[in-house]
Amino acid sequence: MSASYFDDIGPIAFEGPQTSNDLAFRYYDPDRMVLGKRMEDHLRPSVCFWHSFCWDGFDVFGGGSFDRSWHRLEGQEMAEARLDAAFAFFEKLGTPFFAFHDVDVMAPASTMKEHAENFARILDPIEERMQETGVKLLWGTANLFSHPRYMAGAATNPDPEVFACAALQIRQALEATHRLDGENYVLWGGREGYDTLLNTDISRELDQLGRMLSLAVEHKHKIGFKGPLLIEPKPHEPTKHQYDRDTQTVYGFLERYDLLADVKVNIETNHATLAGNTMDHEVAAAFALGIFGSIDANRGDPQNGWDTDQFWNDPIEITRTMIHILKHGGLTTGGFNFDSKVRRQSIAPEDLFYGHIGGLDALARGLLAAAKIIENGAWQDNLVSRYADWDGPLGQEIMTRASLEDIAGRALADDLDPTPRSGQQERLENMILAAF
Amino acid sequence: MSASYFDDIGPIAFEGPQTSNDLAFRYYDPDRMVLGKRMEDHLRPSVCFWHSFCWDGFDVFGGGSFDRSWHRLEGQEMAEARLDAAFAFFEKLGTPFFAFHDVDVMAPASTMKEHAENFARILDPIEERMQETGVKLLWGTANLFSHPRYMAGAATNPDPEVFACAALQIRQALEATHRLDGENYVLWGGREGYDTLLNTDISRELDQLGRMLSLAVEHKHKIGFKGPLLIEPKPHEPTKHQYDRDTQTVYGFLERYDLLADVKVNIETNHATLAGNTMDHEVAAAFALGIFGSIDANRGDPQNGWDTDQFWNDPIEITRTMIHILKHGGLTTGGFNFDSKVRRQSIAPEDLFYGHIGGLDALARGLLAAAKIIENGAWQDNLVSRYADWDGPLGQEIMTRASLEDIAGRALADDLDPTPRSGQQERLENMILAAF
Amino acid sequence: MSASYFDDIGPIAFEGPQTSNDLAFRYYDPDRMVLGKRMEDHLRPSVCFWHSFCWDGFDVFGGGSFDRSWHRLEGQEMAEARLDAAFAFFEKLGTPFFAFHDVDVMAPASTMKEHAENFARILDPIEERMQETGVKLLWGTANLFSHPRYMAGAATNPDPEVFACAALQIRQALEATHRLDGENYVLWGGREGYDTLLNTDISRELDQLGRMLSLAVEHKHKIGFKGPLLIEPKPHEPTKHQYDRDTQTVYGFLERYDLLADVKVNIETNHATLAGNTMDHEVAAAFALGIFGSIDANRGDPQNGWDTDQFWNDPIEITRTMIHILKHGGLTTGGFNFDSKVRRQSIAPEDLFYGHIGGLDALARGLLAAAKIIENGAWQDNLVSRYADWDGPLGQEIMTRASLEDIAGRALADDLDPTPRSGQQERLENMILAAF
Amino acid sequence: MSASYFDDIGPIAFEGPQTSNDLAFRYYDPDRMVLGKRMEDHLRPSVCFWHSFCWDGFDVFGGGSFDRSWHRLEGQEMAEARLDAAFAFFEKLGTPFFAFHDVDVMAPASTMKEHAENFARILDPIEERMQETGVKLLWGTANLFSHPRYMAGAATNPDPEVFACAALQIRQALEATHRLDGENYVLWGGREGYDTLLNTDISRELDQLGRMLSLAVEHKHKIGFKGPLLIEPKPHEPTKHQYDRDTQTVYGFLERYDLLADVKVNIETNHATLAGNTMDHEVAAAFALGIFGSIDANRGDPQNGWDTDQFWNDPIEITRTMIHILKHGGLTTGGFNFDSKVRRQSIAPEDLFYGHIGGLDALARGLLAAAKIIENGAWQDNLVSRYADWDGPLGQEIMTRASLEDIAGRALADDLDPTPRSGQQERLENMILAAF
Repeated sequence: MSASYFDDIGPIAFEGPQTSNDLAFRYYDPDRMVLGKRMEDHLRPSVCFWHSFCWDGFDVFGGGSFDRSWHRLEGQEMAEARLDAAFAFFEKLGTPFFAFHDVDVMAPASTMKEHAENFARILDPIEERMQETGVKLLWGTANLFSHPRYMAGAATNPDPEVFACAALQIRQALEATHRLDGENYVLWGGREGYDTLLNTDISRELDQLGRMLSLAVEHKHKIGFKGPLLIEPKPHEPTKHQYDRDTQTVYGFLERYDLLADVKVNIETNHATLAGNTMDHEVAAAFALGIFGSIDANRGDPQNGWDTDQFWNDPIEITRTMIHILKHGGLTTGGFNFDSKVRRQSIAPEDLFYGHIGGLDALARGLLAAAKIIENGAWQDNLVSRYADWDGPLGQEIMTRASLEDIAGRALADDLDPTPRSGQQERLENMILAAF
Repeated sequence: MSASYFDDIGPIAFEGPQTSNDLAFRYYDPDRMVLGKRMEDHLRPSVCFWHSFCWDGFDVFGGGSFDRSWHRLEGQEMAEARLDAAFAFFEKLGTPFFAFHDVDVMAPASTMKEHAENFARILDPIEERMQETGVKLLWGTANLFSHPRYMAGAATNPDPEVFACAALQIRQALEATHRLDGENYVLWGGREGYDTLLNTDISRELDQLGRMLSLAVEHKHKIGFKGPLLIEPKPHEPTKHQYDRDTQTVYGFLERYDLLADVKVNIETNHATLAGNTMDHEVAAAFALGIFGSIDANRGDPQNGWDTDQFWNDPIEITRTMIHILKHGGLTTGGFNFDSKVRRQSIAPEDLFYGHIGGLDALARGLLAAAKIIENGAWQDNLVSRYADWDGPLGQEIMTRASLEDIAGRALADDLDPTPRSGQQERLENMILAAF
Repeated sequence: MSASYFDDIGPIAFEGPQTSNDLAFRYYDPDRMVLGKRMEDHLRPSVCFWHSFCWDGFDVFGGGSFDRSWHRLEGQEMAEARLDAAFAFFEKLGTPFFAFHDVDVMAPASTMKEHAENFARILDPIEERMQETGVKLLWGTANLFSHPRYMAGAATNPDPEVFACAALQIRQALEATHRLDGENYVLWGGREGYDTLLNTDISRELDQLGRMLSLAVEHKHKIGFKGPLLIEPKPHEPTKHQYDRDTQTVYGFLERYDLLADVKVNIETNHATLAGNTMDHEVAAAFALGIFGSIDANRGDPQNGWDTDQFWNDPIEITRTMIHILKHGGLTTGGFNFDSKVRRQSIAPEDLFYGHIGGLDALARGLLAAAKIIENGAWQDNLVSRYADWDGPLGQEIMTRASLEDIAGRALADDLDPTPRSGQQERLENMILAAF
Repeated sequence: MSASYFDDIGPIAFEGPQTSNDLAFRYYDPDRMVLGKRMEDHLRPSVCFWHSFCWDGFDVFGGGSFDRSWHRLEGQEMAEARLDAAFAFFEKLGTPFFAFHDVDVMAPASTMKEHAENFARILDPIEERMQETGVKLLWGTANLFSHPRYMAGAATNPDPEVFACAALQIRQALEATHRLDGENYVLWGGREGYDTLLNTDISRELDQLGRMLSLAVEHKHKIGFKGPLLIEPKPHEPTKHQYDRDTQTVYGFLERYDLLADVKVNIETNHATLAGNTMDHEVAAAFALGIFGSIDANRGDPQNGWDTDQFWNDPIEITRTMIHILKHGGLTTGGFNFDSKVRRQSIAPEDLFYGHIGGLDALARGLLAAAKIIENGAWQDNLVSRYADWDGPLGQEIMTRASLEDIAGRALADDLDPTPRSGQQERLENMILAAF
């Protein structure tokens, strides 16, 4: 029954920029070759389970507005009907990956035992549908923030029993991800922070969080899971302050707890902007620090201060981000996961397609433009020539041999008066726009 | 002549909360004993040079509104008159420390040679006034952001010649700080970031910045300077993005370039809030990570998105911050430096006093309230009991011995259902307010 | 049964600043005379129904954490048990007023008919409890945002049938407010705005909103309700953009639809700050424009960008706000309604008391400090002398007689060079702090 | 000499999207017909004087980085050389309009008399260059914020002598605008607000501001100036709070002081976003309220909280804005004025061209996309059908005849259960993107 939810729609085909069909791709063309690789292999797009198949459209000020057919069922029956709907959607959309939290896919549970059982029971049905459709798992994760037991954190909870519950969920979700050939395992610490510093011992809580990560890394090696663990930075919401604020903050945490070899970041656009960063900054910083993992593709609303998780349909911002990905060789285990939801008023089945189509087309346009910029070379040339003197004698001496005294002495002796050079910001911004 | 600028005012005395004298302290009473230490020794207050003695009241939309007498002079004469005015102010206010950038105290220079000479020439006059007044140097620093040569950064400039100019200024300012018995040396990387990521290689620039810090550390040891180097985090402004965004970000940077032993943070309130953090968070995080150094006491305007550097006159926020300082044993080499400026319309000499008096009284009230909270014990008791189970058997096992499997197994076997406990945020907030 | 929820607590008594009892007032002393009026009559404090008795602690990322006893019941039984709990709380806290939305007090309904019936059925029980306890109604309102039918607005919905449903709720809630001797009737247009301008006709929607207000004003007169209608400004959330952004915006709307005689504003602190205004600005602006009505007392979190509705426990900000209220003669029909909620982790019955106690104490401190400032006179004197020249000959001529040519001619003829005067911001800020 | 500043560059020609010439237009093609009108006549682009010809590149943290040749001169000679440079730039760029403040074009003055003389003396030279080049004046204005006398406001200053000085400048600038056939006269009240509410009487200040506007309107009619006066809304900066916060606020102000017939708004993108609004909202609201005047085309930086005045190079945001302009018949006296500046590091003469070229190309793309959307009709159709029921019987009855009782009665009698309809936000967003 639930699979029939989308019966009147799709499959979605590539029809090119001139189409007037709102349910077709204008730019996303999986097999188109870009810089020697299929577009789909560049983007590795993934549909997330939670926003489109679990959320009923509620917000803090009002109740569910969607009327998904499977939400009228209960327990395992609901869970399987939801799987049917989701895989039907994946197939019609034609995207190769999906991603889920444990609670997204299973029948609801009220105790830890029931959780373990219900989650275990849904793995066969998932596996079957994956085999039938060929859809693969980009990553799995455990939801350690929705149940009230996690209100004060999971790993960072003041109660070690809560840590233990979280450990059970992580173990199960990590093993399930391994069994389903997931390419990464993600940890979003939605409540790993604080609501008030007045009742919080940051030092202890960071150690607890470091410990949980170390345990997960150890277990990953034990079971032979090859993919990276990915921390998903977010500055706040639901908490007042989350410890994994942004990429640079996570880097410091990973250094501190000796986790750099096994843990990387899953960067979300809306989290980046809530933290006061651009998305391209977060991606560039992750590459610079060697911890780039994957992307949760969405956007916030620049006028609103919470996580709106809208579809990332700004091809210009995507281009700026994609340049860094292409320059560093492209995605490996990561993908572009649509952690994006239709608006609460977008209640029709078609709206789920419009959202993802817009997101895929925007990614495709960003990829094409970035490829053009990389191929053209002028952007990269400018960067190289701008720093060229650092590869010259003075630059090399500074970086490798000289003392502060030597360098200062040189500035004084030569009465240095460096020639000012334009930063050319406007020209470079025009270059990005010209690539469309 | 310039000393006479403040002739009609002061010295400022402690007169108690009931005074109606606007030019007296109501709470700041240097010799009052608080938790066994003089109030002044707790606060180590410092007046900064730049805002009160160099700035003429200009802003981006308009010209200087102040009419400081020394600004009518030029060159070395101006510089010495400015010193006279500043030290007269320090004495009348009765604060023990001051802080400066090289360019704040010297005659203006247009070349590096002239810079070196003019700065060298002002050190004797400074030393004399320090001896005469007993005012000490909290920290010195080099201004590596105002001269146009630094428009694209100092250490992170694409031109190594600019790095060399910066090295000269740092060397000189560090040696001057040492000679003047400064207690710390500060580095604020006002332009160490970027205006556009499109022309920027983050990787190179971070390496350059790490290199400059390493050179400064090496030189500090060479000349025998004992105080710490302090990085002052700021997320942006004047640049779009600065690398030393906040305390946690700086921690990661220091780990990466192996600088944790010698470099700490100078935390500024207005920079904390621009970065999306509270001041008490920044201070607590710095202690948790072992990098707390000193404080630049000011505040921003919560409705305005730039660095307003107002006097920090919120005693409630100060109390929350001071609790963390007292709990960790108080300040050592650090102090509370008033990196604060009167508003552009506050053009009278008295206004400089009103600003600092308000700031000192607010610090004093915050200190007194925090001491009351520490002495009362209920706040600390709540914290201890909240985490007590982590010192119990399950907590200890998790932190030291168990594997993820063990812990998960325990959660499942016992079907754990942790008892929810109140976070008591409202009670704790009331506790802070009751301390006034 | 539900009344027993608070059995172990209260009543809350005034015990003075030195008490160590967390369940007592330190400053809120209803009968204390302040500027010739009882403190309670100055503050007219009100407890809101929704946050403390309806909300179960859910947020966007997790389920209900509270375990209120009445939430285990259903229908009318639940509604009456909830009333019992609420009035028990009001009595123990000792506050004279309460406020509610229709759906807060009634048994849940799924159709308009059921809504009308269930709401009608709860009015007797409310009236009885009001008579038993002496607690009065500050204001009533209709919830026109939670039911999915209002997802695209109530009055501003593109579907006139939705407008009609809203009209039914407003009619009933307005009449109930009148019957229960409510002092005001409030309209918060939570969804009267848009999620995207792309599907919105602002012109039409403003006309619809103006029409609904006009209809409500007409009906108010018809039934003889004497209190004002109050619009509650908010800039966004849940919508991207709400039409009643802030006080100045509402003023323009009331002018446009000729509603100034009957409609005023209910100003909420957290809405003020979300709109980029201070609370004292909103209150001062409302008085300046003649539309001040009442206050929803709470605060946001300056680091978080959504409506956190925390208890307003910043006595300094309250003082700045209270000065404007006292200066304009104090509250009339309005009050300070605690539109505030305990944090999701504050799950104990005591926490509801801690929150309200902190809020009442902060209001009391703000009132006492503001009264001191008003009595002292220096603040008002400064204001009068600052503008004194506008009451002099040049000022009067400019405001009443002269042409632009005259005034310009005068400036030129006299080559005017106005004497700069200090704005004294720091001195005035110190004055506020000294009043504590 | 100064004209030669741009000798190596231009004129800038349209070369189409495929050009690799960074100093050519890709989309801006003045004579291309769009919806029956020349592109230039749609856009009416204007270059502003202040950012490109007066600013030397200083910011709050550092000195001027540009080395404009005319800045080495002084007095009238400087002013005329600056005119030469500016008009050379206008000609090479090929834009039809410019805009200026009095102080931008004249020799600096230190008294009011000198101001009047110096401004008068530059009008002939301006007129000559306008005749030579054919460049027209979009609008003139008086700078009432840079001179320290305006630190506490111009019209809203507590000193009526300052009001008089402002009146002189307004009179002169308005008459000059009239003489130079300017199409509008603008008032940006940069300091018409407050730094602290503690020293401010909002009521008086609003009356003063209303008075100044009334005087200007009266004078406009007297001298026969036909263009509208335009207020330029801004929420803050340089002040903490400005009275003309945004379009809706200005509307209320114009209503209050009976200025709606003569005064409209000049909307700036960066001011819109600082106020928490989108640019398309501001434009749509201005049309809905009947006060649309002109546009200052620029953008802010979403991560920075101050007025960055960057070139508006987001064609998607421009499209959303342009739809509203086209739908309402296009610009009349208004234009797109580039109130935009190159970055402080963009020190080459070419950079001024890159900035304006990028801005013009983005406007052109936005216009072309908006025209496509208007011609296609689907966007407009969706809007019409969404509100269609308001033109039906129930809608008409509600808007014109019924009472609240009637409408409520209808909802109850019919037990209305309005059919939910999708808001289609994602589909509409895709529609905008597909137009590129």
